[in-house]
Amino acid sequence: MKKQTIKALAVTLAACIAIGSCAVAFGKNIVTKVEKEVSAEEMVTTKTPKYVFLFIGDGMSYPQIETTNYYLSAVKNGTSMGDKKEGTVLEKESDELSFLDFPVAGSAQTYDSSSFCPDSASTATSISTGHKTYSGTINMDEAGKVSYETITEKLKDQLGYKVGVISSVNLNHATPAAFYCHQPKRSNYYDIGLEMIDSDFDYFAGGGLLKPTGANKDQENLYDLAEKKGYTVVNTQAEAQNVTADTGKTIIIDEHLADSDAMEYEIDRPEDHWALKDYVAKGIDCLYEGNDKGFFMMVEGGKIDWACHANDAASTMSDTKALSDAIDEAVDFYNEHPDETLILVTGDHETGGLTIGYAGTNYDTFLQNLSNQKISFSAFDDNYVSKYKENNTSFDDVMKDVTDLFGLVPQSVASQNAETGVTTDSADSHPTGVTSGNLVLTDYELEKLKDAYDKTMSANEEEKLSQEEYILYGSYEPLTVTITHILNNKSGISYSSYSHTGLPVGVFALGVGQGEFEGYYDNTEIYNKMADLLKVE
Amino acid sequence: MKKQTIKALAVTLAACIAIGSCAVAFGKNIVTKVEKEVSAEEMVTTKTPKYVFLFIGDGMSYPQIETTNYYLSAVKNGTSMGDKKEGTVLEKESDELSFLDFPVAGSAQTYDSSSFCPDSASTATSISTGHKTYSGTINMDEAGKVSYETITEKLKDQLGYKVGVISSVNLNHATPAAFYCHQPKRSNYYDIGLEMIDSDFDYFAGGGLLKPTGANKDQENLYDLAEKKGYTVVNTQAEAQNVTADTGKTIIIDEHLADSDAMEYEIDRPEDHWALKDYVAKGIDCLYEGNDKGFFMMVEGGKIDWACHANDAASTMSDTKALSDAIDEAVDFYNEHPDETLILVTGDHETGGLTIGYAGTNYDTFLQNLSNQKISFSAFDDNYVSKYKENNTSFDDVMKDVTDLFGLVPQSVASQNAETGVTTDSADSHPTGVTSGNLVLTDYELEKLKDAYDKTMSANEEEKLSQEEYILYGSYEPLTVTITHILNNKSGISYSSYSHTGLPVGVFALGVGQGEFEGYYDNTEIYNKMADLLKVE
Repeated sequence: MKKQTIKALAVTLAACIAIGSCAVAFGKNIVTKVEKEVSAEEMVTTKTPKYVFLFIGDGMSYPQIETTNYYLSAVKNGTSMGDKKEGTVLEKESDELSFLDFPVAGSAQTYDSSSFCPDSASTATSISTGHKTYSGTINMDEAGKVSYETITEKLKDQLGYKVGVISSVNLNHATPAAFYCHQPKRSNYYDIGLEMIDSDFDYFAGGGLLKPTGANKDQENLYDLAEKKGYTVVNTQAEAQNVTADTGKTIIIDEHLADSDAMEYEIDRPEDHWALKDYVAKGIDCLYEGNDKGFFMMVEGGKIDWACHANDAASTMSDTKALSDAIDEAVDFYNEHPDETLILVTGDHETGGLTIGYAGTNYDTFLQNLSNQKISFSAFDDNYVSKYKENNTSFDDVMKDVTDLFGLVPQSVASQNAETGVTTDSADSHPTGVTSGNLVLTDYELEKLKDAYDKTMSANEEEKLSQEEYILYGSYEPLTVTITHILNNKSGISYSSYSHTGLPVGVFALGVGQGEFEGYYDNTEIYNKMADLLKVE
Repeated sequence: MKKQTIKALAVTLAACIAIGSCAVAFGKNIVTKVEKEVSAEEMVTTKTPKYVFLFIGDGMSYPQIETTNYYLSAVKNGTSMGDKKEGTVLEKESDELSFLDFPVAGSAQTYDSSSFCPDSASTATSISTGHKTYSGTINMDEAGKVSYETITEKLKDQLGYKVGVISSVNLNHATPAAFYCHQPKRSNYYDIGLEMIDSDFDYFAGGGLLKPTGANKDQENLYDLAEKKGYTVVNTQAEAQNVTADTGKTIIIDEHLADSDAMEYEIDRPEDHWALKDYVAKGIDCLYEGNDKGFFMMVEGGKIDWACHANDAASTMSDTKALSDAIDEAVDFYNEHPDETLILVTGDHETGGLTIGYAGTNYDTFLQNLSNQKISFSAFDDNYVSKYKENNTSFDDVMKDVTDLFGLVPQSVASQNAETGVTTDSADSHPTGVTSGNLVLTDYELEKLKDAYDKTMSANEEEKLSQEEYILYGSYEPLTVTITHILNNKSGISYSSYSHTGLPVGVFALGVGQGEFEGYYDNTEIYNKMADLLKVE
């Protein structure tokens, strides 16, 4: 009795100080999604979370998150910044990505053993094992000699947890691979695939395996090998629909693979194709039912990174939203198991040097302009640019597609439309000719597009790019990357790189042990904190 | 007796859960600076902090912080990334900015009532009063009708706290002004100065007042008025040295004012000139001695923003370090008064779209290159470019200064040096001609510099910049901004804007009530959390 009283007091006092601030931010913002706060008692006892979700937005740091949040808010509220009128006040009532309302948000430094701008192999190694290594190396030391055991392997071996690995890109790409393999080079796709099969993990889902028959196409097919090892391999939605916990070890390959056998960009995905969140929902079913031990699920939003490499902001944002939607599946699960669940959301590194702001637009942004983009850079390359090259399509005809698919309008067409009564603002007195909602190309922009078109149409793979061309186009299709650059800039945002950058990433936490993840720390600490909480060695 | 036991248990339990994670990050990283952790007992009782420091890095978000941290680490450890050799491993043992090791690090959204890329007036209003308003407005509503009381005014009136306001830029600039004035326009410098004098606050120090005799130079001098109101006004270091708590209300104007009567850029500051930290140390003396009520000190690192506007990375980093050094003065104070002190470090918004990474350098950075810069953009404009214009200095002669002051070497000079035995690598096979330590200008870069030189020498203020020129130069001296752009890019970093951007800012907290500042929240919450902790209404 006395013990109970003491405990109650302890709980009360602890609750006052430990979750006081959480409750404020928490109750207010996330009330529609998160139905139950972490109980005070639970925080005192610091339980081991039984169900752990680790969401990794590849290439997702604060710029990707905040751009998406602001863009969705701008579209929803019809706020066009930079178009301030007397009496207009920008209001933003809520966050559009629910994980922004998680009670804990720390930050992690991402440098690796070779670079301040690290890659996914080394950063996922840090998150998965707590070790730094070279860019390109997965779960091994810099010399490629020593293997590091992963959090997933430890959980399976030491606690009997089930493990799920989901990615919107290839299941043997660096990030998902870092949760089951140990390879000196991330490009060892076949060997990585072999380790995936040997992992004996319970649920894999997402993009197709790269090099399934080896680099020389002379090895036994990985999918056949997986089936021999007892995996059910599924590659249609109809079959995937029927997968349950009773199916046993499962590999679901998305039915509608796109570039490099990854899942489609969210912006290109028809509504009836499965999204990342569908694989998470299915994964929860498979890992939870009849499992009294617990599970760990890693979910990668891999195409955020690919879109950022290509400086395609619209695709970046739609894939960031797709990741957030997938996280909401986990939040729903958390609401049913608040005392046993931990959800972590982080990125491995930033990609592209995305900025909400651009030299040519000063303090103005016109984020809604980005909603004019109807297609990913990649689908545009595959479905349009390839045909332009084949048919030697004229610049004027190309521009018709550019207007339809990206909203950018040549001045000449805008003038014609004006004559025929269709109003399109012309470039006005803004220092750079950019104004709210104005997608009419200035002479400067049109010239850049024409140069890029010429470069695309005369492409010669042998020819080395000049320094200027490399900065303008990276390794991308000059026409396409110039289109997205111009649309980005006319929306008030910009990219500064085609590679990863050194910005720290956010670490958002909700659930059992969330408090461990506050502060500013190294990405290896993400592993250390998880391992401490989960009591694995 | 029983009560004590219960309390002890409560304290123990609370300590386990509440500071468990803090202690880990904390003890390890900040041990040399922070000598005593917040006691468990204190966290249970959630005391009101008696001594509050609020450091605001103007324009300082994660990019400014991490670039500085990595740069200082690179210089200290001699690590030149992108120059990876077999067996070389990048190691970074500690953070170079001690506030990165504060136990709490949250993030704050910065949008204001007019923009996703807000200004210092509105964002400082949010931090100081908890209200959103238009860019350009200080502590008033969007209509400029309703005044908002500031945290500093409330602390003075309700709790008798002393108040100090310090800035490396002008004391009536937007950020410091937001802690004592209420004005519909930040450009009302004289009226702001009048409110500063009327504030009756105890300690002001830093850059000089703008428009001290009004916009038309026909008003009574603000300094004279301040003295009439009982302030001791000091503008030499010798006098400043003698200021004590006994001096009473004091305004210290830096003896060595530079551009726009702000303090010098840290990169230009001779060692015997007072730095920001000296004004903090003096402020602590004045506010602490003989004061049994408490104090609130706001310290702005204002030139971080100015350097970022100009895309001057070397000056950005040295002023970020200067702010960190000033914070260390507060940490020393915290170590003496750990149970009564709260230190907050944040930014008001990001400026410049700074990125650790650049399209032309892929995954490589060469941060040490930035140590070749010996002068701020501003001092270079004032002391060199003005003379070039006066004397019509030749491009070749200008380039000699550029080599001396920024390290950039024309190919022709590098070749001559090579002939005379002075080795300078020439641009090699990197896709963009940039290699580690290589500051030899490529043809493309030299052409850009020459164009900028021509533009600077033929400058005609009447002439409107073209869209391309505006993107290249903003409103800055074409020669100077092109020099810093090229040096930045050859160091593997870049800026994307001359204005503020929409990135969230970090909020680092140490001390009494630190836990309140975890999470991802709106910048108005910084005020709300402070007000809750300080129990003002």
